Amino acid sequence: MKSYRKELWFQVPSRRGFINITPQVEQCLQESGIQEGLCLVNAMHITASVYINDDEYGLMHDYEIWLEKLAPHEPVSNYQHNRTGEDNADAHMKRQIMGREVVVAVTNGRLDFGPWEQIFYGEFDGKRRKRVLVKIIGE
Amino acid sequence: MKSYRKELWFQVPSRRGFINITPQVEQCLQESGIQEGLCLVNAMHITASVYINDDEYGLMHDYEIWLEKLAPHEPVSNYQHNRTGEDNADAHMKRQIMGREVVVAVTNGRLDFGPWEQIFYGEFDGKRRKRVLVKIIGE
Amino acid sequence: MKSYRKELWFQVPSRRGFINITPQVEQCLQESGIQEGLCLVNAMHITASVYINDDEYGLMHDYEIWLEKLAPHEPVSNYQHNRTGEDNADAHMKRQIMGREVVVAVTNGRLDFGPWEQIFYGEFDGKRRKRVLVKIIGE
Repeated sequence: MKSYRKELWFQVPSRRGFINITPQVEQCLQESGIQEGLCLVNAMHITASVYINDDEYGLMHDYEIWLEKLAPHEPVSNYQHNRTGEDNADAHMKRQIMGREVVVAVTNGRLDFGPWEQIFYGEFDGKRRKRVLVKIIGE
Repeated sequence: MKSYRKELWFQVPSRRGFINITPQVEQCLQESGIQEGLCLVNAMHITASVYINDDEYGLMHDYEIWLEKLAPHEPVSNYQHNRTGEDNADAHMKRQIMGREVVVAVTNGRLDFGPWEQIFYGEFDGKRRKRVLVKIIGE
Repeated sequence: MKSYRKELWFQVPSRRGFINITPQVEQCLQESGIQEGLCLVNAMHITASVYINDDEYGLMHDYEIWLEKLAPHEPVSNYQHNRTGEDNADAHMKRQIMGREVVVAVTNGRLDFGPWEQIFYGEFDGKRRKRVLVKIIGE
């Protein structure tokens, strides 16, 4: 069994944003030399997500509106977590809806995707450097 | 290390619906001959889910009502994504709540489940043939 | 390839609650002797979650309030599932938001975590003994 590990770093300039990280994950897979296995991609921070969906600008706008409706940032004082001096309680909730991680099949040395699947980093408390972990195991 | 891959195809006749796909995944596991490992089951489409929960008719009805409340289909014009000519923006949201994939332990050649765990395909933009990927790795 | 399996049992004295189970999972990993691989941790019950987030008391309070808002326990009669004699339909929904499972990378014999990642058992229908499955594969 082979294993491969890499950290990817991202800095989203605004509080929230979405980045298509599929090319970086594909490069990891090539570097790994793994042909058959599983590829785990997870946010290493608890106010961010890794998820798979469509690379369509309007949809990302809709996610932003929708997540803010389900878990509003303000009023910041509505959340006990923010009494610790943080203002990011909503980010801990948005991340649960969008998820921490994806596991992708590796087949014939490729990410085994349906036609529109793309991997995204979802940032909900940005303006600083944060990490995504890529771990691939297989043969 | 062994690996196994199969695509399962489903066509839900209505826009939304839930199908218990546990028997098909169990058959994949038998075909694979894998005794110990991990079994990934994921929707290959971004408007559908694979999730694990109860095979109880009333619950599926409740999920339908609940998801429609959290991410309503209409008004279709409320979503920027639908300006692309689609009317399925809500399906991209419902799928995030229910999830893209499950990873199930394989022990002694069986799906290692608690008493009520069953694998479902959740369709949120149906009336056409769509795929689920089963990937199993182990020994 | 090595594989390891263990069930962890928990009993939450109230209907809902959150338990940090990271120490138990770390102990499993030590027992497994696995240095490189993947660690799956999943609820074996369909009214409970395993998720990764912050071990901060205020946040757990906020999750409780937030989940109850998105999927209220009462009125119990609002859910068809509860006509089976259960009163836990809301728990099946809360569990979908928080998720069934996490997959954690294993690197150099350690759970490969970011700075604040901790594994939690989320109970939404407690007052009885319930199980979490830990399955680790690798070398």
